[in-house]
Amino acid sequence: MTQIEPIARMVTELSHLPGIGQKTAQRLAYHIASMPLEDVRQLATALWQGRKAIRYCAECGNYASADQCVICANPERHNGQICVVRDPRDVAAMERMHDFHGLYHVLHGTLSPMDGVGPDDIRIRELIARLSDGSVTEVILATNPDIEGEATATYIARLLKPMGVRVTRIAHGVPVGSDLEYADEVTLSKALEGRREM
Amino acid sequence: MTQIEPIARMVTELSHLPGIGQKTAQRLAYHIASMPLEDVRQLATALWQGRKAIRYCAECGNYASADQCVICANPERHNGQICVVRDPRDVAAMERMHDFHGLYHVLHGTLSPMDGVGPDDIRIRELIARLSDGSVTEVILATNPDIEGEATATYIARLLKPMGVRVTRIAHGVPVGSDLEYADEVTLSKALEGRREM
Repeated sequence: MTQIEPIARMVTELSHLPGIGQKTAQRLAYHIASMPLEDVRQLATALWQGRKAIRYCAECGNYASADQCVICANPERHNGQICVVRDPRDVAAMERMHDFHGLYHVLHGTLSPMDGVGPDDIRIRELIARLSDGSVTEVILATNPDIEGEATATYIARLLKPMGVRVTRIAHGVPVGSDLEYADEVTLSKALEGRREM
Repeated sequence: MTQIEPIARMVTELSHLPGIGQKTAQRLAYHIASMPLEDVRQLATALWQGRKAIRYCAECGNYASADQCVICANPERHNGQICVVRDPRDVAAMERMHDFHGLYHVLHGTLSPMDGVGPDDIRIRELIARLSDGSVTEVILATNPDIEGEATATYIARLLKPMGVRVTRIAHGVPVGSDLEYADEVTLSKALEGRREM
């Protein structure tokens, strides 16, 4: 190939990112090659310094730039509710909604016996430790509505119920703005099952 | 927002790249946040060191990592043909085809009076200089088949014709593998006009 080495290296590194194939990586590399030096320095610095600055919240496991994440550090969020999610990006999704005012617990994975991920490999023990002082009144399980997410939710629910804490699961149903016609049978059946008085 | 500063900065920088919107930038930033430190260092280094290493070929204007690009440095490519393109990425596109064995000339732009881009703002003078020793027998104009590309091709053709060099334009027609039904009228008319004996 006649692609020069600096560009080829950019393409290789960029194509390791999720959703960035060879073509997109090449388009991005050629763009970066034509960017002012200073802008590329800023981009590279944001990625490297940013990654170095990221820590995990000692409480909930969310991304943080200090010992505690901004949510755990906010006393107004300690309302007795803990929402359990798989990833920090799920925290971001929940926060975009602006409707949840409690704390989070990030598992950093879901149970997956096939991949050798057991209860000790995700942050379940840390979740139980957070319930010990009795300040938590409800644990909302917001793992994904897929096989591993359901299994993880079921496993945690069984573990926490005997501790006297209220354990809930986010609702499954037809997404708002979608079309019934395109909903799969399992979702529709869950939507019917979870119907509510109007 | 509860997005921490290092991630917010990554999102801002990434969303400046072409084709990367807020959502994609956020997905990428969260991914980079979870990547091993060493991998992020490699990515950032590839972008920054890569950008620093990129120069323009003194001959043709293509990206190069030395004074001359790999194509101009290859004596077998000096066959008397010069293919004129707008961007280094167009050189990459032509090279992927593996059918052109001559040299390139990168204009770094197209004539666009509306944007104040005139003949002196793109590398037309450099192209004329390359024709002075008489070694070039054909100039193939491969600027884009849009208004600016056509205008640029026409302008260069008028300029070069009196110099006795053969000037050609790449064919316009129906793209291979596409459907006649979806071709626009101008393309179809060009395809008919450029028809050849079978």
